[in-house]
Amino acid sequence: MSEKLQVAVAGIGRMGMRHARHFATLTPRAELIAVCSPVQAELNAAAKEFPGVRTYTDYDLMLSEEETLQAVVVASATTVHAEQAIKAIELGLHVLCEKPISTSPEISQSVVNAYKTSLESHPLQKVICGFSRRFDASYRDAHNRMVTGSIGKPSVFRSQTCDKLDPSGFFVAYAEFSGGIFVDCSIHDIDLALWFFGEDSKIKSVTAVGITAVQPDLRKHNDRDNALGIIEFYGGKIAQLYCSRMMAAGQEDCTEIFGTEGKIAINTQPQLNLVNLYEPSGIRREIPADYYGRFREAFITEANEFTACCLDNTPAPLQLESAVKAVAIGCALQESLITGKKIEFDESGRRVEGSKL
Amino acid sequence: MSEKLQVAVAGIGRMGMRHARHFATLTPRAELIAVCSPVQAELNAAAKEFPGVRTYTDYDLMLSEEETLQAVVVASATTVHAEQAIKAIELGLHVLCEKPISTSPEISQSVVNAYKTSLESHPLQKVICGFSRRFDASYRDAHNRMVTGSIGKPSVFRSQTCDKLDPSGFFVAYAEFSGGIFVDCSIHDIDLALWFFGEDSKIKSVTAVGITAVQPDLRKHNDRDNALGIIEFYGGKIAQLYCSRMMAAGQEDCTEIFGTEGKIAINTQPQLNLVNLYEPSGIRREIPADYYGRFREAFITEANEFTACCLDNTPAPLQLESAVKAVAIGCALQESLITGKKIEFDESGRRVEGSKL
Amino acid sequence: MSEKLQVAVAGIGRMGMRHARHFATLTPRAELIAVCSPVQAELNAAAKEFPGVRTYTDYDLMLSEEETLQAVVVASATTVHAEQAIKAIELGLHVLCEKPISTSPEISQSVVNAYKTSLESHPLQKVICGFSRRFDASYRDAHNRMVTGSIGKPSVFRSQTCDKLDPSGFFVAYAEFSGGIFVDCSIHDIDLALWFFGEDSKIKSVTAVGITAVQPDLRKHNDRDNALGIIEFYGGKIAQLYCSRMMAAGQEDCTEIFGTEGKIAINTQPQLNLVNLYEPSGIRREIPADYYGRFREAFITEANEFTACCLDNTPAPLQLESAVKAVAIGCALQESLITGKKIEFDESGRRVEGSKL
Amino acid sequence: MSEKLQVAVAGIGRMGMRHARHFATLTPRAELIAVCSPVQAELNAAAKEFPGVRTYTDYDLMLSEEETLQAVVVASATTVHAEQAIKAIELGLHVLCEKPISTSPEISQSVVNAYKTSLESHPLQKVICGFSRRFDASYRDAHNRMVTGSIGKPSVFRSQTCDKLDPSGFFVAYAEFSGGIFVDCSIHDIDLALWFFGEDSKIKSVTAVGITAVQPDLRKHNDRDNALGIIEFYGGKIAQLYCSRMMAAGQEDCTEIFGTEGKIAINTQPQLNLVNLYEPSGIRREIPADYYGRFREAFITEANEFTACCLDNTPAPLQLESAVKAVAIGCALQESLITGKKIEFDESGRRVEGSKL
Repeated sequence: MSEKLQVAVAGIGRMGMRHARHFATLTPRAELIAVCSPVQAELNAAAKEFPGVRTYTDYDLMLSEEETLQAVVVASATTVHAEQAIKAIELGLHVLCEKPISTSPEISQSVVNAYKTSLESHPLQKVICGFSRRFDASYRDAHNRMVTGSIGKPSVFRSQTCDKLDPSGFFVAYAEFSGGIFVDCSIHDIDLALWFFGEDSKIKSVTAVGITAVQPDLRKHNDRDNALGIIEFYGGKIAQLYCSRMMAAGQEDCTEIFGTEGKIAINTQPQLNLVNLYEPSGIRREIPADYYGRFREAFITEANEFTACCLDNTPAPLQLESAVKAVAIGCALQESLITGKKIEFDESGRRVEGSKL
Repeated sequence: MSEKLQVAVAGIGRMGMRHARHFATLTPRAELIAVCSPVQAELNAAAKEFPGVRTYTDYDLMLSEEETLQAVVVASATTVHAEQAIKAIELGLHVLCEKPISTSPEISQSVVNAYKTSLESHPLQKVICGFSRRFDASYRDAHNRMVTGSIGKPSVFRSQTCDKLDPSGFFVAYAEFSGGIFVDCSIHDIDLALWFFGEDSKIKSVTAVGITAVQPDLRKHNDRDNALGIIEFYGGKIAQLYCSRMMAAGQEDCTEIFGTEGKIAINTQPQLNLVNLYEPSGIRREIPADYYGRFREAFITEANEFTACCLDNTPAPLQLESAVKAVAIGCALQESLITGKKIEFDESGRRVEGSKL
Repeated sequence: MSEKLQVAVAGIGRMGMRHARHFATLTPRAELIAVCSPVQAELNAAAKEFPGVRTYTDYDLMLSEEETLQAVVVASATTVHAEQAIKAIELGLHVLCEKPISTSPEISQSVVNAYKTSLESHPLQKVICGFSRRFDASYRDAHNRMVTGSIGKPSVFRSQTCDKLDPSGFFVAYAEFSGGIFVDCSIHDIDLALWFFGEDSKIKSVTAVGITAVQPDLRKHNDRDNALGIIEFYGGKIAQLYCSRMMAAGQEDCTEIFGTEGKIAINTQPQLNLVNLYEPSGIRREIPADYYGRFREAFITEANEFTACCLDNTPAPLQLESAVKAVAIGCALQESLITGKKIEFDESGRRVEGSKL
Repeated sequence: MSEKLQVAVAGIGRMGMRHARHFATLTPRAELIAVCSPVQAELNAAAKEFPGVRTYTDYDLMLSEEETLQAVVVASATTVHAEQAIKAIELGLHVLCEKPISTSPEISQSVVNAYKTSLESHPLQKVICGFSRRFDASYRDAHNRMVTGSIGKPSVFRSQTCDKLDPSGFFVAYAEFSGGIFVDCSIHDIDLALWFFGEDSKIKSVTAVGITAVQPDLRKHNDRDNALGIIEFYGGKIAQLYCSRMMAAGQEDCTEIFGTEGKIAINTQPQLNLVNLYEPSGIRREIPADYYGRFREAFITEANEFTACCLDNTPAPLQLESAVKAVAIGCALQESLITGKKIEFDESGRRVEGSKL
């Protein structure tokens, strides 16, 4: 085994701390050496949990001080993902950037551009966007089966990312910067659609509708708590999306890929574990309360595979360009959700005039 | 028990014969007395299976000759549903008309109008459209639970009617007169949406996309073999539909109703029966091959409840007006499927200009 | 269709009334003409539900008065099953006798003997014991698959009949005459074991243990509320039984047949219908509250097939001799349950001395 | 974080290598420093996979040479478990011994005795037997629920350990030293019964039967390929076991605990992951091929918790005495399986005379 990858995590809120843990204790080939956050309380918590790991309130300072640093995990607020990623890229560091790269396709593209430029001088550099589902054992099993032809030609895709109802109002505040429910939640489903249909799939149109069934205040941020979307791709492929913040039982993320000769369903019968409870009211099982409950193992695999590709200079497990495409589709869906208009694209990817705002 | 309802079945193709059987042997309070069909072979088969039942090649002749006739089941080709239903209605007969009443909303409305007129002189007359799912024990259980508040306010609806792949080309020929996949298949899901959201729900918009993944010849009849649709209703309710002719495993009809406090799922884990097979390739279960395999019991309940409401003059189990609304929505979806346009409606139900063809 | 089978039901308690309904309204080829019960209130209820059906307090009188009677359903208390069955048999009537024929193997055999004698003068006579699971669609599917070789040689059998907890004390009173939990409940599982392993299977040993977890008063009738049993058959076949009166969620009857090349499981995931409820506490489904909720369709099939074999003189759907064997095995298990002794049999079916009480 | 626990693995066959991997790369607080095996090829494989880890053909030599050694994982052949464990114990080392400690209750007890003696001079020493299911998230969830009263008083227990059919003949050779199917497989279920019923449960009787359905050669080692057992405990608790080497689909390990107020079922619907395949033959899912596929995460948790209790001197996650009791019950079941006799125990744990061989 080679030396351990020296990793820093930028942003150690809830998800950032999880990344820090994964790299500190569950990724044998990596070593967590530093974390940064503008929030001192978060740094204190990290210092306590990870003795010896250096803490910074300033991202730039961390980059300049940590001379052995090889890789940065960007898990800060979405609004600074791109800026932090680009800074690390320009230093030749490997980057694992949380999704979405940005809520703007243009800014997302700028990260790709920075990477392309940097690759010229740092040909071994790896930059990926953390689409955790790509690392999930069930999604991988499904993808492998599809690739080996078990369902014929994949033609229809259905996927949903549905969060448990959080009556605290968290999602209203969150919506101000999240980019909207299609960019925040459905980005995963869009990424999966691209993965299953082919990352070179050309988008033909998007349409979306939505409501605020439980949190009307979302409207002030042009967001909704339940939304339905349809994506058409050139070449006879269509996708149906549902995103929600209203689930009672827990996280309900599931996907179906319908092919000309069969279907693969992932997590259409969600469950917390292998326990069933037989009670006077019937048979009951619990389901994960949030996406981390569902995808924890995938995040750990992500940390390990990212580490391995950096250390071994093997191909990255996913392509950064695809993440930009996912943002662009998510933004188009979000726009359609708000304007009520169907948005069409020609085969070169340009929006058709009549469908513009 | 009162006298038995005297029933005739018009159209004794596959589904008509099933109706005939249900009334002849599985509806204790009904008696099948006559059947008609333009196809002599069908009449021969019926004569053999139902000794004593009179057979007719001519519908009008049957109506005039059968003096004791009380009720007609219209199970003929969709193209003559309305005409046959109106003739029976005008004679004061009870009518159970297979879905859809017609592939045209206007013609469907004409049946409602005929019924309204006839009711003035035949106040006990019952006319229903056979939306079999309304009689299914699971859908009824779901509806009862929703009505009693177990999921809060129903807000999002997902439903699909997906047929097993039939490589014979049957569906291509069938598409010429079926009204299209949204009118033929999704009509059930639309009816369920109206049932769960309220039959007075006002439609706001429809959008649809589709492909021909397995039967490109459907395009010559302006049809598709897979289609996705979204329906918006005024008042913050949205519905997502999927219809298909491409399922590998069998009939996949399922529905989910998402409320503000919970969700009800119907048949999201389809199965033929209670058997699971443990084989070297894993655990396997079969699913019904067609809608009749899934809904046979519902059809029998339909026959019995239709009979009971006719004999006892109790309220019909469903309202004819709703069936017209379902056809109108199905036709709008089918139009959107072909034109690629989103179709919008104002609160009075009129199409918004810009959305017209 | 031929004339309708003229049927009387003896005993119209809860299950008897269900039989009466099945024959009166759900068996097109049968006609319910009479019922008898020593309980006048039951007769009144029947008279109201089945106008025109004659009622009797005396079984013998019914047999003598009903000159057109062709078949008797014996659904009275278990203690009079055999006596009533024999009386009907001796008159040449067809008989459908509820399980068990008797709680005594000897008395059960006497019914078979009476039938054999009667057959000499009434060669078309049909007498069956109502093992309802033999008529269940899932069990039949399982049996068909096994017979056609899909699991290799069936070798291990697991089956359970587990009733919902009834805190009313009903089962304590019931235990006085039920023959015990193995004769009352497991008789079905034993019959299934014989059906799946072959009705000519030779019993080698039985062992049983049990407890009174919720109803200690059962001990005064030498009964238990939970019991486990093992049956060994000659030829390398073994069976595991569980019977209980303590289930929280409802009726839990399931069966597994393990063959050398596969396994078939029946109802190992019990459910009331196709509805799943997503609630803050998780995903929930209900299950049938009692055996009738699980097997109603099977009872109706039983009524129709019994009727058909009587009218058409086709082979009976199950053999009476097998029912005697099931009682004998059930009694041996019950004896082992109480004595704590393993009971062994030689290949001729005789008990091995050392294992006697 | 404190210093890392210095660990050696004795025996690096299939399961030993897995333990080595868990400690080397998936247990952050442990460091694998040495392995031993009499098989040079195994040592070569380990040397390649774990650079820097020292390899030994001789267990004693390893113990004497590895001066920093703190803990030994005994994963060698069952026949040397006890001997190797005792040697490590006597040196004051922590020990994680694979199950069973021995196929003899007396030898198993000698390990406990050695541990008790050693504790006097090494009060911080931890010795556990690796019952992996105790570390499984689903079993733990079930146990927690039971402990907090969600099913009332646990009264009936059903559990099975059923291996996938291995036509290679492996299990025949293996049976020579395995102690038999009840000691090798059901030991887990017995341990679970003790865990769920209370480790102080007093055994009252055992009975077992078995067959050789697929591997008749097992008889030469007094073993069977399918066996059923019943365990009675004093105090009104009973358990039903099934062990098999004949499953077609894969590993089928499941458990049910029936309480007076509810039931908990673990893995009664086995699955490999969250994928369902919809194919022309129905809906299919795969299941784990072996116990490691089912319990891998539990083994990793075991490694981490064993490490933590050694480093932090916290209570061991399970008690060694219980493992001796499990072996004693397993041996009694195996004896009953072969002799055909029920074996009874008095409340002091002594065998009742009449039940002896």
